[in-house]
Amino acid sequence: MTSDLSGDDLTAAVLDSFAPSTEPRLREILQVVTSHLHAAVKELRLTQKELDAALQFLTAVGQKCDETRQEFILLSDVLGISMLVETLNDSDDAHATEATVLGPFHMTESPRRALGDAINLLPGGEPAYITGRVTDSDDNPIANAVIDVWQCNEEGFYDVQQPDVQPAGNGRGIFRTDADGQFRFRSIVPSHYPIPNDGPVGVLLDLTGRHPYRPAHVHFIAQADGYRELTTHMFVADSPYIDSDTVFAVRESLIVPFHPVTDADQAASVGLSSPYHHAIVNIVLATDEEEAAA
Amino acid sequence: MTSDLSGDDLTAAVLDSFAPSTEPRLREILQVVTSHLHAAVKELRLTQKELDAALQFLTAVGQKCDETRQEFILLSDVLGISMLVETLNDSDDAHATEATVLGPFHMTESPRRALGDAINLLPGGEPAYITGRVTDSDDNPIANAVIDVWQCNEEGFYDVQQPDVQPAGNGRGIFRTDADGQFRFRSIVPSHYPIPNDGPVGVLLDLTGRHPYRPAHVHFIAQADGYRELTTHMFVADSPYIDSDTVFAVRESLIVPFHPVTDADQAASVGLSSPYHHAIVNIVLATDEEEAAA
Repeated sequence: MTSDLSGDDLTAAVLDSFAPSTEPRLREILQVVTSHLHAAVKELRLTQKELDAALQFLTAVGQKCDETRQEFILLSDVLGISMLVETLNDSDDAHATEATVLGPFHMTESPRRALGDAINLLPGGEPAYITGRVTDSDDNPIANAVIDVWQCNEEGFYDVQQPDVQPAGNGRGIFRTDADGQFRFRSIVPSHYPIPNDGPVGVLLDLTGRHPYRPAHVHFIAQADGYRELTTHMFVADSPYIDSDTVFAVRESLIVPFHPVTDADQAASVGLSSPYHHAIVNIVLATDEEEAAA
Repeated sequence: MTSDLSGDDLTAAVLDSFAPSTEPRLREILQVVTSHLHAAVKELRLTQKELDAALQFLTAVGQKCDETRQEFILLSDVLGISMLVETLNDSDDAHATEATVLGPFHMTESPRRALGDAINLLPGGEPAYITGRVTDSDDNPIANAVIDVWQCNEEGFYDVQQPDVQPAGNGRGIFRTDADGQFRFRSIVPSHYPIPNDGPVGVLLDLTGRHPYRPAHVHFIAQADGYRELTTHMFVADSPYIDSDTVFAVRESLIVPFHPVTDADQAASVGLSSPYHHAIVNIVLATDEEEAAA
């Protein structure tokens, strides 16, 4: 009999309603999330009007999403949930590069490019040369690792945000490391930027006295057979907002200096004009423990 | 410095990010909900793939909503959150009629109708006559109370679900009680029905071995100056699913028998043919404590 339920009995009835035949992890997730949501409602003694407002807000978040906008990831980001998940899933390998949030702009496939190619397809911005090496935690090079990179332009916009201005794939590229685990590409120094704040998440930030800015960064996903996939950023040292990222994603180990290079020959040798900035990003991948165990 | 945060420090930084200048209740709600969401994520050690799947699910819930479909209310309903909020906000007045969920179909304005009018505008269904009285908790009649009713048809569909079949306002009406606090209208016996299950909430029910059915009921909102607004149902006694409402909304005190009436003269006197069913719904409103306190 599931009538006349209130308080803890009601919560128990909802938890029991997920049949024992449910896929066990799904059942666990639903039971834990439902328990916590009920606890929050009870603690707050939420009113009907407040519940209505919350459901309207969540509806608006869903409806703001389209092929180039993911407002629910933004919401998860500004509530620190995305970063919490990243930190919980950090590799146990203390030498491995730390992870950070995926963000909402990894929604199109990056073009495959050759080592040394430019990912910036338009003029403008401060030239940058980004080089690095992918290794295991014993400093052995990982050849043929896949490095997916994406970044905004000098005004803080990703290609998908400016389809009339930027060609698709601007600021993006997929590279494979060479036999020494090395990779290199040309780009520009990315700008700090506000997360898209013309939607419900922007209203939330506004109502709570929060700025919408993220410090300048380049996104990376690194993958190689037998290693744990890594989603991370490199943050531009000394960028505005490096101390107050609105999505709580900065980790000290991921801050990288962009050294100015003024030598014209050196610039010419990498296909850039001087001055340019050189950033070095070394990525250490942890062994895939699940794969190793299997 | 809000970099290099993890675990409890990260949660604390997010809670602190909502500025002290935020409207106090909004800040309280955001802090309590964020705390519980972080606790759930930690307890589950949620993976990135699971978070992605959760955000995709919530996006799909939002995108399923339109002018006639409110999938987020359905989600709140099937997780027992809507009913929990109702029970937390029950009047302290033990004599008052108990509340239950609003549901997702109170989205159009009901037409104003005269006492005795029919709310069913199409042929079909088993005729019903619903009468009642609105009183305070000392049994004094409340004249001029507004009673907003809505129900599904004999096939379990609300007007907004079948715009090509049912005229707008079918199964709906707003009535005012007479000097004796009485109201009456003609209708049909509503059917039990599945909540709309062709969207993401339907997938959730399916994956967790839950049926989508609600027992037959008529929705009521009763309002009168100086009294607490009441959102409730009357459930049809002996309806299928009366013991397993998928939104946990049944309360024993709200179950009403639909007595068969076979007398032709009696039927004619209320504008119905015999046999019909007669249901009596007495509604007791609590004094509006906030208004009384003011």
